[in-house]
Amino acid sequence: MRRWALARRPDGLPQETDFELVEAPTPSPGEGEALIESLYLSVDPGTRPRLSADTYAAAFRIGDTIESAGVGRVVASRSPRLPEGALAMGGFGWTSHVVSDGRGVQVLDPALFTGKVSPTASIGILGIPGLTAWFGLTDLGRPNAGETLLVSSAAGAVGATALQIGRQLGLTVIGIAGGAAKCDYVTGELGADACIDYRAESDLAAAIRRVAPDGIDIFFDNVGGAQLDAAILNLKLNGRVVVSGQTSEYNSTGTPRGIRYVTPFITQRLTMAGLVVYDYRKRFTEAQAQMAAWINAGKLSYREEIIDGFERLPEAFIGLFKGETFGRRLVRVAP
Amino acid sequence: MRRWALARRPDGLPQETDFELVEAPTPSPGEGEALIESLYLSVDPGTRPRLSADTYAAAFRIGDTIESAGVGRVVASRSPRLPEGALAMGGFGWTSHVVSDGRGVQVLDPALFTGKVSPTASIGILGIPGLTAWFGLTDLGRPNAGETLLVSSAAGAVGATALQIGRQLGLTVIGIAGGAAKCDYVTGELGADACIDYRAESDLAAAIRRVAPDGIDIFFDNVGGAQLDAAILNLKLNGRVVVSGQTSEYNSTGTPRGIRYVTPFITQRLTMAGLVVYDYRKRFTEAQAQMAAWINAGKLSYREEIIDGFERLPEAFIGLFKGETFGRRLVRVAP
Repeated sequence: MRRWALARRPDGLPQETDFELVEAPTPSPGEGEALIESLYLSVDPGTRPRLSADTYAAAFRIGDTIESAGVGRVVASRSPRLPEGALAMGGFGWTSHVVSDGRGVQVLDPALFTGKVSPTASIGILGIPGLTAWFGLTDLGRPNAGETLLVSSAAGAVGATALQIGRQLGLTVIGIAGGAAKCDYVTGELGADACIDYRAESDLAAAIRRVAPDGIDIFFDNVGGAQLDAAILNLKLNGRVVVSGQTSEYNSTGTPRGIRYVTPFITQRLTMAGLVVYDYRKRFTEAQAQMAAWINAGKLSYREEIIDGFERLPEAFIGLFKGETFGRRLVRVAP
Repeated sequence: MRRWALARRPDGLPQETDFELVEAPTPSPGEGEALIESLYLSVDPGTRPRLSADTYAAAFRIGDTIESAGVGRVVASRSPRLPEGALAMGGFGWTSHVVSDGRGVQVLDPALFTGKVSPTASIGILGIPGLTAWFGLTDLGRPNAGETLLVSSAAGAVGATALQIGRQLGLTVIGIAGGAAKCDYVTGELGADACIDYRAESDLAAAIRRVAPDGIDIFFDNVGGAQLDAAILNLKLNGRVVVSGQTSEYNSTGTPRGIRYVTPFITQRLTMAGLVVYDYRKRFTEAQAQMAAWINAGKLSYREEIIDGFERLPEAFIGLFKGETFGRRLVRVAP
């Protein structure tokens, strides 16, 4: 078996040398356990702060396997909960094989993955990214039909889902993305009312005002920093900021940039709240069922970018911070 | 009559020359109106952003009378709602006399101002500052007995009230104030469990950690900037920030300082919300009755600093931003 471990704590943007490929004999499952071979593993922007020591309690230790979501197949089993040959998903981490007693692992019902829903969706739009969009928008965003939703990183896995859920809820939806190709995707396939290419704008706050002259009710933020500031300056009375991710901050060395505008929280009665999606665990299945139905009805689309090769996991992860991703990025680690 | 008008927009800390004393003949009340002579007028930190042009819609125009709360006496009346000789309070502004048709003016019931409650309390602890503390803490703060509350500007009119309300609700209360005298007041008369003198600390986040090693549940913030950052770093899971005021930001020229730490909103599931107390207008009387009862029961104390002389209004206002205030600052403008 092979796994990617944290070799050293990155200083700013992670380097491939911050990760170490560790080989070991493939373990055998004990009584009540099964051996799962990874098929697809995820790379997630939210992993970045956990590579640093002082960020928060969930930081990795040096030598730890990098955690991630995974879809795999049970290849040997001594557990009735994980039958041999079954597809399963869970927080496998960047590892070719994992021994599991079933805790935190979900055997995938083939019935869910019919029509347009592929098993990889279980770690994408029906997994943590999609669920983050769902609960962030529907719970913290407190959306009302007719309101205006702005989403940063709108072509990314979380943003694209938030945008489309917003559309289904009757909101006017505006995306922010980097580059014309992504903006075409956001207004085309995702059906946004408008998209702002932040790379083409020298004054992002003015650009938001141009496309939403009456202001924004909800900002669903995956980026933070200057994009969050620009949105705050455009929030209406009682506007809400959903802090889903802060990718622009994760690689900052020393003190992060943060935001400049807090006084509008008073004058405009704003609310800003962040979420960790695992807090909503008990409501995952209801959200997954609704989103799967929307996918099959053609109301919710998702895009996956599959990179081949276990050895490319660090490279695929680092690329997340270079603006090169488009939809959910997964690495195929076995055929 | 005399009034103080905005002469020019301040650049940073306001100067006395930013205000102009305007004299005019004292007006006579028309049918349905009364003439009120001001007795006490307030100076409020929240006025500062309204002196700047681009802050928000409520900005003053050049020549406008500076708005403020006031207590006065009806000296001539052609309105049955405002009987001659009555004490009244309202948003009089920095003016020696005001003609009113009664809208926005409350005739003070002498019965409320018995025991320890003076009529000036109507524009202090029972007025906007006290009500801001009340609704900010009880509504946005979502307090639960046993939690820990941190309050900035804890010796100020809003902070001192928030702290004491927190105590009545069974919270552990910690103040931040500038200087030993204020901290003595906060832990002595106000009964806080601890007070941090921010002037004596080089690392405010570490100082908060020292007095609250298990963290803070609610930060009631009147100051913003570095104090808000230090509090964010000490907020527990599901912590709340009540944005009541941002005095450290009001005089910033150009881009304000803001905050650096937004990622903890995700990892700690924080919420930050601001308020304008007028949104709670329908519930003012319930809060005033409870606070008056607490004052008379010795459970809620307030401190007023009375400065004499209508001509000193700008000076008294500017001093708010020099850390020299202690409790609610009022200017006595008539005997």
